Amino acid sequence: MSANLGNNLDPWLSAYAERAHTLSVSEVRALFAVVSRPEVVSLAGGMPYVSALPKELLEKSYTSLMAKKGDLAIQYGGGQGDLTLRDQVRELMALEGIRSSVEDIVMTTGSQHGLELLSGLFIDEGDVVLAEGPSYVGALGIFRHYQAHVEHVYTDQDGMSPEALEESISRLKEAGRTIKFLYLVPNFANPSGVTLAAERRPKILEICRKNHILVLEDNPYGLLYFDKPVPDALRSMDEDGVIYLGSFSKILAPGFRVGYVLAPPAIRDKLVLAQESAILCPSSFSQMMISEYLLNSDWQAQIDTFRGVYRERKDAALGAMREFLPKLHTTQPDGGFYLWVTLPDGVDSKAMLPLAVKELVAYTPGTAFYGDGTGQNKLRICYSYPTPERIRLGIQRLATVINLQTELLDTFGTKGAAN
Amino acid sequence: MSANLGNNLDPWLSAYAERAHTLSVSEVRALFAVVSRPEVVSLAGGMPYVSALPKELLEKSYTSLMAKKGDLAIQYGGGQGDLTLRDQVRELMALEGIRSSVEDIVMTTGSQHGLELLSGLFIDEGDVVLAEGPSYVGALGIFRHYQAHVEHVYTDQDGMSPEALEESISRLKEAGRTIKFLYLVPNFANPSGVTLAAERRPKILEICRKNHILVLEDNPYGLLYFDKPVPDALRSMDEDGVIYLGSFSKILAPGFRVGYVLAPPAIRDKLVLAQESAILCPSSFSQMMISEYLLNSDWQAQIDTFRGVYRERKDAALGAMREFLPKLHTTQPDGGFYLWVTLPDGVDSKAMLPLAVKELVAYTPGTAFYGDGTGQNKLRICYSYPTPERIRLGIQRLATVINLQTELLDTFGTKGAAN
Repeated sequence: MSANLGNNLDPWLSAYAERAHTLSVSEVRALFAVVSRPEVVSLAGGMPYVSALPKELLEKSYTSLMAKKGDLAIQYGGGQGDLTLRDQVRELMALEGIRSSVEDIVMTTGSQHGLELLSGLFIDEGDVVLAEGPSYVGALGIFRHYQAHVEHVYTDQDGMSPEALEESISRLKEAGRTIKFLYLVPNFANPSGVTLAAERRPKILEICRKNHILVLEDNPYGLLYFDKPVPDALRSMDEDGVIYLGSFSKILAPGFRVGYVLAPPAIRDKLVLAQESAILCPSSFSQMMISEYLLNSDWQAQIDTFRGVYRERKDAALGAMREFLPKLHTTQPDGGFYLWVTLPDGVDSKAMLPLAVKELVAYTPGTAFYGDGTGQNKLRICYSYPTPERIRLGIQRLATVINLQTELLDTFGTKGAAN
Repeated sequence: MSANLGNNLDPWLSAYAERAHTLSVSEVRALFAVVSRPEVVSLAGGMPYVSALPKELLEKSYTSLMAKKGDLAIQYGGGQGDLTLRDQVRELMALEGIRSSVEDIVMTTGSQHGLELLSGLFIDEGDVVLAEGPSYVGALGIFRHYQAHVEHVYTDQDGMSPEALEESISRLKEAGRTIKFLYLVPNFANPSGVTLAAERRPKILEICRKNHILVLEDNPYGLLYFDKPVPDALRSMDEDGVIYLGSFSKILAPGFRVGYVLAPPAIRDKLVLAQESAILCPSSFSQMMISEYLLNSDWQAQIDTFRGVYRERKDAALGAMREFLPKLHTTQPDGGFYLWVTLPDGVDSKAMLPLAVKELVAYTPGTAFYGDGTGQNKLRICYSYPTPERIRLGIQRLATVINLQTELLDTFGTKGAAN
């Protein structure tokens, strides 16, 4: 074998496609190994607390499913997904003001795969994707894989700023760039926890419509509000310009890998073809388990149970932040799984992570949520999985690490700390 | 909206990526709508006969799974797949002579997704993929989507011809083409039903090794032999140059969407990253259901049951071919789901399909299994799903249509019939 064809580590090094080199180990992924050690309080991965789901409800779904249509449940299904479940998804989306037809709904292998397939349909190398700053790490990975440039638009406690969006678009257009879509998580965003304010929603849509930019509205957390429901979905205000992505991972369980996409008809047609090419069809068994669950259980009451769990954990997290890290700014989420914390100037959350793990606490560094290396003095706390007591303990440990870092900076100084 | 940005049917027409235009409705897909009418005998889609799986076996898996690890089953899992199941897959592959480590096995959403992710890792636009002629329609769709040129290598009743492979490679190399891999289904191939002869296997591997061409061995049917086991897998003879794809869709049930890939370490690493980007992780629930099934049931006896079912249906299909279409050549499979039938010269299987459907029988036209438009006078019969009586009825109906076509050709002649 000649030297230019490979090396000792990988004889196929020269054979990979260009896009294979866009794959890299994410900062979140490296953390998963750490998380599995029971002594570490993980405030990192975004796992829902599935123990709050009574397993009898699934038992009922399983029994009912196999009695009624066992053979169908284990057979290949249609590429667009199960019709009964799509009709139930239609009703689910109506809770956020969305009117839709089952014909325009496509079931996917988690909403991640919906986003992956849509990105494949739209992104050519060098295209621009607009996103919140910060934005969901899993989406950024997909956009990078398709060799898009991600442009983060200024985002505050009310979500993405319409003025900043308009400014970004005109700057990019002047530079001759092609903007393919705006990706956003409007409710209890990952990682920021913020919600796009009701009055900003029509403005964002109007700006996108005017500039012929498609909107991808990713909404896994919308039903997990603490007190009052979220504003109506962007999709409820624009049927032609918005693709809506939803998921059962947070309101039921992620182990089924079932999400869904609502798209305008022409895009939906292409999405079904892309899905058939990628996986033939989504899992009948997973889809039908969920369909039976929605049919036989009081799923709205179960979502209420989840809301209670996450509200209590959010309160524990914010309480511990006030107690142990009173000087740090954190977002105040009205739902979902996340706090977004700003560290003192000069403290680098990624560099600090090994020290935190040594103190037996893990989080996700802020840079994971930007495509451009910013977010160094930010970190994400996910409070969805540990118990309130563990959350308090984790944040106490985190305070030890942060305070030590701050002292070191105060004593010895750095360029960052001097600002 | 200006005219060049879209049209009335699709306002986003100008926004699609180049690769979106590679998606087209497959010939097999169009048939699925027809298949659902109960009066039509479908010899088209490749559905396994899942009714032969006693549902009590799944009940046992479900009960055992939820009792032992219900929370894990519905939670996110690792991107590489469930470790216990990977160890069981290792044992399963050992039945075909493969030695492997759990570290090198990646669970996928059906083996289709394994093939899709691998194609994404290797194929740049314009690259060549070598394949049998005919080859699996679902693979051809993926290769087209990645804008590969598929070069079909001459294949006879003993599988792909090593001489033809060598000839194709040197011709392509002379033309300056980049060959990325050889894709083949060595056992009871879809659609031809043929098996790659034992003595050809090392020859094929040697040719590929010499030319630094990776081999993708796709083996969903290998354990479904009628009489004697298949020759050892290509992967058992070459650990560095072969990627092996397997599936539970045919030996258990496709509704779980669980397949697997065994790959050299460097490729496996990239495959896991690609999978995490695409779907985060495969379904824990589906994987663990299968793991419990393998643990608690006599799955080898169940595969024996499937073998008996498919052997009986193959006999029914070949018997009906002898009875109603004695002059036509058909392959004689030793396992799997398919017959590959050669029609009289001048009969076009695709043009004939609507007439067949009118006679209440469906099949898959031969052109679906070629990337280059050939296969016009071929068709695939899938005997796995209908009962033996229905298979006989279907082939009787097919004979009516083919005989009418042949008579018309004999009477009026065409260029094809005149040969």
